[in-house]
Amino acid sequence: MRAEVIAVGTELLLGDIANTNAQTIGRELARIGVDCHVHTAVGDNVNRIAEAITGTFARADVAIITGGLGPTQDDVTREAIALATEDRLVTDPALVAELEERFARMGRPMAAINLRQAERPERADAIPNPLGTAPGVLAEHDGRVVYAIPGVPSEMIAMLQASVLPDLVRRAGTLASIITREIRVSGMTESAIAEALGPTWERLGPGDVTLAYLAGKGEVRVRLTAKAPTEEAASIRLDEVEQEVRDVLGPAVVGRGDETAELVVGRLLDERGWTLACAESVTGGLIAARLTDVPGSSATFRGGAVVYATDTKPSVLGVDHALIEAHGVVSGSVARAMADGARRAFGADVGLATTGVAGPTELDGVPVGTVVVAVSGPLGEADRQIRLPGNRDNVRILATSVALNLLRLYLLGALDR
Amino acid sequence: MRAEVIAVGTELLLGDIANTNAQTIGRELARIGVDCHVHTAVGDNVNRIAEAITGTFARADVAIITGGLGPTQDDVTREAIALATEDRLVTDPALVAELEERFARMGRPMAAINLRQAERPERADAIPNPLGTAPGVLAEHDGRVVYAIPGVPSEMIAMLQASVLPDLVRRAGTLASIITREIRVSGMTESAIAEALGPTWERLGPGDVTLAYLAGKGEVRVRLTAKAPTEEAASIRLDEVEQEVRDVLGPAVVGRGDETAELVVGRLLDERGWTLACAESVTGGLIAARLTDVPGSSATFRGGAVVYATDTKPSVLGVDHALIEAHGVVSGSVARAMADGARRAFGADVGLATTGVAGPTELDGVPVGTVVVAVSGPLGEADRQIRLPGNRDNVRILATSVALNLLRLYLLGALDR
Repeated sequence: MRAEVIAVGTELLLGDIANTNAQTIGRELARIGVDCHVHTAVGDNVNRIAEAITGTFARADVAIITGGLGPTQDDVTREAIALATEDRLVTDPALVAELEERFARMGRPMAAINLRQAERPERADAIPNPLGTAPGVLAEHDGRVVYAIPGVPSEMIAMLQASVLPDLVRRAGTLASIITREIRVSGMTESAIAEALGPTWERLGPGDVTLAYLAGKGEVRVRLTAKAPTEEAASIRLDEVEQEVRDVLGPAVVGRGDETAELVVGRLLDERGWTLACAESVTGGLIAARLTDVPGSSATFRGGAVVYATDTKPSVLGVDHALIEAHGVVSGSVARAMADGARRAFGADVGLATTGVAGPTELDGVPVGTVVVAVSGPLGEADRQIRLPGNRDNVRILATSVALNLLRLYLLGALDR
Repeated sequence: MRAEVIAVGTELLLGDIANTNAQTIGRELARIGVDCHVHTAVGDNVNRIAEAITGTFARADVAIITGGLGPTQDDVTREAIALATEDRLVTDPALVAELEERFARMGRPMAAINLRQAERPERADAIPNPLGTAPGVLAEHDGRVVYAIPGVPSEMIAMLQASVLPDLVRRAGTLASIITREIRVSGMTESAIAEALGPTWERLGPGDVTLAYLAGKGEVRVRLTAKAPTEEAASIRLDEVEQEVRDVLGPAVVGRGDETAELVVGRLLDERGWTLACAESVTGGLIAARLTDVPGSSATFRGGAVVYATDTKPSVLGVDHALIEAHGVVSGSVARAMADGARRAFGADVGLATTGVAGPTELDGVPVGTVVVAVSGPLGEADRQIRLPGNRDNVRILATSVALNLLRLYLLGALDR
């Protein structure tokens, strides 16, 4: 069985809101193993909604529509379903009674316009709405099925769970289970990862597990998707492929999808019983912000200094003026001295430092994108110089990821020095 | 002219991410007055992408595709465009040279797989990508146009603005001009703003200027949209309504859409010839990160301390132990002492401090969401205690906005003390 999602609402086309309803429905369809190859968004226009339904019926068995079921004149999903299924709208007395009862319960008079919500295509059924006044619609036509549920997310989710998904599962008979898992990788480019995993990709072919790469913010997530008759079987296949990915990529693997670098670093510090402080120049507080984003980070993170003006590196962190003179601010020596200064100033076991040029203009002849990160602690010191691409924002975000990755590898004892 | 958006990526169908790229492109098309009636999302499948393009070509003049241009095997938008426009893929020597140069500049070896990104349909043109390795594609076929740009949002937006929209405007000839302008408001809730602007809203009616409210991250943006025959006429109407909004909301107005609190604060400091340092506990570096996000911020921002562990407040900032004992860490007295300590430690004119409880659990009996912000400088001291809603993330982000707003009002001399 194949389903598609149609989201209705001019506000989606105008970009006033993101199409999160399609996201939710897509996720739920994947969870119950129903294939979904297309999401469509159309405005509040009866012909265009009807065309979207007809288009879906040409490609798939099921259309799930969200939105356009309200009481006002711009809510025309009911009309569009009637048009696409060659039916006509009727007023359902049972729905009228329900609406009247609901308004009476709320102690409010019912506006005449609300009667539009008691209309449905003649051959269709209503889908109960436990949370609002808009009933849904379930219509069948030429062996195809269309479900329509409101666009208000809470009502949409409630009706999806209570009515649409169970009905879908019943119609589909036994379904396969599709589950996904992400593996975070740091310190390798998307193409380097793809090349390393090339043989794995080849071997898997168009089989039961697929790989995809999602790059962003200095990390790549490798997404594994498995399809199997049961959720358990899919999970076992994912375990196998995940192990292979981990074997191939080694310490570049940070963890699974929800295991961020900051989370893993906190765990590694905790395991060693160490605390951390940081000294940030080019990253301007982004490292501290990411570290403190993790609940409970106060157990291992003591604090940090954002030493933005050059003369605060000596005054706040005790970095030697002569060192800055001799090597320049963007140098391994200064970054190490900053990491060391952070350890001392905050009384921490490990110090992490960044210095560099985020742009938009070069600094003392050092080009934009040049970044040095350093770590200092019980295992000794290390630094890395790197040239990062992109604009100011990008350089800062990538530098943060590079620094956290240096720290992670240091704490793993996986750093070549 | 009519355009449609096609977003490519199996992660969209599976609901791993929301289709925010379609939202952005939809907003930009509305801004330049190009009608857009359908958004489609399809997976990383060459035939289905090609079918989506063919479907768009049947309904509209232009398809804007985002995603599927990466270097890996699952990136097949290039192939799909060739299929839909009856063309064949060729390797473009100029693109190869550009890629080689880009990798050389970064000092990194280029993986063989990156050569996929130098491919394009033979009759198509490449769209330059200033931020990444994936060039875009511009192809024409039977009087229709398809643009393809990457799915990475920063690259997508940059290429949309620099290449796609100008080319669209050129092709469309004269359009009715729809322009929007946002006004940032801080320190007022969405409903308080809507109430204050109620008379303005009533007076404008369903006329040439509309108002919308977008709330998020501790700020509300009031969006004005004007439609007029020319951009100039629309701009004049926006000027009038903007002035009215500013008159009604007073110092709660931070600035226009791109005038962030951090930008305005930097400008106000610069005007007074003052420098700033901050002392962050609950915000954990987020204030410093926002301040240093502004190019040139080093002129006014000296640096800051993230004093996360309680004992670093005395050791790094010289906050009196007795003060912490007497009032608790989350108190106006301690926040003021932190702001003062930051001024001293970093040699700055003004200090800004935050302390509070981000959660998930309360701290020494202080409930989650309690935040105190303080400012100290040549105009004296001030602090504000506030109880913020939401989860850890939300509390941290809102606290950052509250602190920057306190500082902004302080620098404006608009703070009641």
